[in-house]
Amino acid sequence: MSHFYSNNFKLGILGGGQLGRMFIQAAINFDVNVHILEKGSESPASSAAFSYTNGDIQNFEDVYNFGKDKDVLTIEIENVNIPALKKLEQEGVKVYPQPHIIELIQDKGAQKAFYEKHQIPTAPFYLIENRNEISSYITELPFMQKMRVGGYDGKGVLALHDENDIIEGFDAPSVLEKFVDFEKELAVIVARNENGEIKTFPLVEQEFNPEANLVEFLFSPADINDEISKKAIAIAEQIVLKLDFVGILAVELFLTKDNELLVNEIAPRPHNSGHHTIEGNITSQFEQHLRAILNLPLGCTDIKIPSVMINLLGDKGYSGKVKYTGMEAILALPGVTPHIYGKAETKPFRKMGHVTVVNPALNKAKEIAIKVKNTIRVQSES
Amino acid sequence: MSHFYSNNFKLGILGGGQLGRMFIQAAINFDVNVHILEKGSESPASSAAFSYTNGDIQNFEDVYNFGKDKDVLTIEIENVNIPALKKLEQEGVKVYPQPHIIELIQDKGAQKAFYEKHQIPTAPFYLIENRNEISSYITELPFMQKMRVGGYDGKGVLALHDENDIIEGFDAPSVLEKFVDFEKELAVIVARNENGEIKTFPLVEQEFNPEANLVEFLFSPADINDEISKKAIAIAEQIVLKLDFVGILAVELFLTKDNELLVNEIAPRPHNSGHHTIEGNITSQFEQHLRAILNLPLGCTDIKIPSVMINLLGDKGYSGKVKYTGMEAILALPGVTPHIYGKAETKPFRKMGHVTVVNPALNKAKEIAIKVKNTIRVQSES
Repeated sequence: MSHFYSNNFKLGILGGGQLGRMFIQAAINFDVNVHILEKGSESPASSAAFSYTNGDIQNFEDVYNFGKDKDVLTIEIENVNIPALKKLEQEGVKVYPQPHIIELIQDKGAQKAFYEKHQIPTAPFYLIENRNEISSYITELPFMQKMRVGGYDGKGVLALHDENDIIEGFDAPSVLEKFVDFEKELAVIVARNENGEIKTFPLVEQEFNPEANLVEFLFSPADINDEISKKAIAIAEQIVLKLDFVGILAVELFLTKDNELLVNEIAPRPHNSGHHTIEGNITSQFEQHLRAILNLPLGCTDIKIPSVMINLLGDKGYSGKVKYTGMEAILALPGVTPHIYGKAETKPFRKMGHVTVVNPALNKAKEIAIKVKNTIRVQSES
Repeated sequence: MSHFYSNNFKLGILGGGQLGRMFIQAAINFDVNVHILEKGSESPASSAAFSYTNGDIQNFEDVYNFGKDKDVLTIEIENVNIPALKKLEQEGVKVYPQPHIIELIQDKGAQKAFYEKHQIPTAPFYLIENRNEISSYITELPFMQKMRVGGYDGKGVLALHDENDIIEGFDAPSVLEKFVDFEKELAVIVARNENGEIKTFPLVEQEFNPEANLVEFLFSPADINDEISKKAIAIAEQIVLKLDFVGILAVELFLTKDNELLVNEIAPRPHNSGHHTIEGNITSQFEQHLRAILNLPLGCTDIKIPSVMINLLGDKGYSGKVKYTGMEAILALPGVTPHIYGKAETKPFRKMGHVTVVNPALNKAKEIAIKVKNTIRVQSES
């Protein structure tokens, strides 16, 4: 398997969104052929892929048929058919991350149980089966209610402040998580290959859009002290070790007002909190994921230059064929690189792209990022 | 024309080699659809292109038919059919760089005449029509003989040291150029858009493989003083201004032992001397070319981190299906990014890829680059 380059080696990805698209950009450097499975005739990853198969990543037959002639299979989204991946794994296809780990992470309840078992710090929680059960914990409100399965991009998560909110709660198996009074939201990306080599990226700080529950700004490096940074990295490394994980894992953490770190969520794939690494770090998260799943030596993760990442979300009140305005103005600012994901249609808060701003001074990058945010508009054609 | 992104806007490139391939990687960030014209059923740029047309870039009909439905046309190699491009330009297709400039640069004799006319410093030269004419200049030997048209990648260039070498000389219209006793070979890349905005990249230093007459190592930044750097940049800017050039132009210069700068050659496209910009500079040469030809604001060219670029040339004595060895060893070195061009067949000195090494200390990057050079082998399968 040491002969990936310019060969018939076949790497398959389940999912053809922006993560697959940026992964392909990195894989081109290694001349590894990437094959995509995604529903519909086109997707962000379709035009750059070596081959594109129209199929449902949640359907057993589609995943199995796509995977059976691949050498290595990976994912760019968690909601994939696990039985098909397990069967492929048994038949000798390398599937990274391993299907049983994707399965665990698909279920936010199982994730929380895993943290508890391995003494990974996380917010206190209860597991419930339906909306009625919320009432049993009424004295402990407020909670974040998170659906155990199927949540994505800010969906499937809800704040229950008091009794009156319960009626709005999800009537589905969920995690009820105690509110965390946090100072900052941090993230760290860790990679591990089959040989067991582990590397982590420097920590980043995330600022969320409260309405969409999506990251609005990301700052690299995070403004935290060394001690916190080391602790967060140790937690991330502990998670991949305990999971025996191969691939890249994003770990989102709360830094509480008492300087405590709590794991919020993990994602077993390249992640929004690592997009800045394309321009800002010596190895990008996408190249690192490729190296990890091919069991290549992991790349140096050091920061090349401080960076700020801004998500381009579809503007509220606009749906339909996308039109970007203000692009020329932001391109005139120093250190601005756009990443337009190639989605033909916008809708409110849809992730349509991101912009990275690099600058030797992080504060200057922040200033420019705010200008970018205030200048670019993601709307629909009138 | 301000609506390129995620739209039906069509950008065509004549040529589907590694330069087209890396250009596409950059264009994906802008979601601009890139269409490729190249001979054969596949090429380095084919799998990532939005569409791929099998045709000859030197053939009038092929170029004209490919170009007529494009919004903007560009090149990744100079040897293209000029009459077709001129006709397309007349019919309203934007062709950048402009066909008459490509035509001028195709001819090394016309290039030299251009320098002379505009007082751009260059080595003294004579224009000859055939091999016999070399004898007229016998007292002025040695010369570099450069075929006026058709030379590429070290081909079409020959050193004539003394009378005995004349028999080996090209029997074709050529430039006879006086030997330059140089200290360093430098290069600077300059971009200009339709609005007339000009930006140059910091200078680099090139070290050639004497046998193949191809760049072996490139160092960024060049080890030169500010005065030389400013002079070189002024020369590059003078050239694009006098040409009324739109696009990206690579200017290769000799720094003589008397600290004089002489233009050696220019290339009207992304160039080997700019590959390090992908990892090392805030904007890559490929993104800059895209910005220039779409008349977008040009990107900041500052160095992010010092870098060394090593060309991966096919090993002597090996032809056939390529096999890279030593890749894992080089990937274990810090700051190493490979760029494998996706050529199935190797041959001696063929450009098969390049490797960029970045490091906060250029000397450390050089050390690692030498290890890379001594470790990786580009050979054929046994």
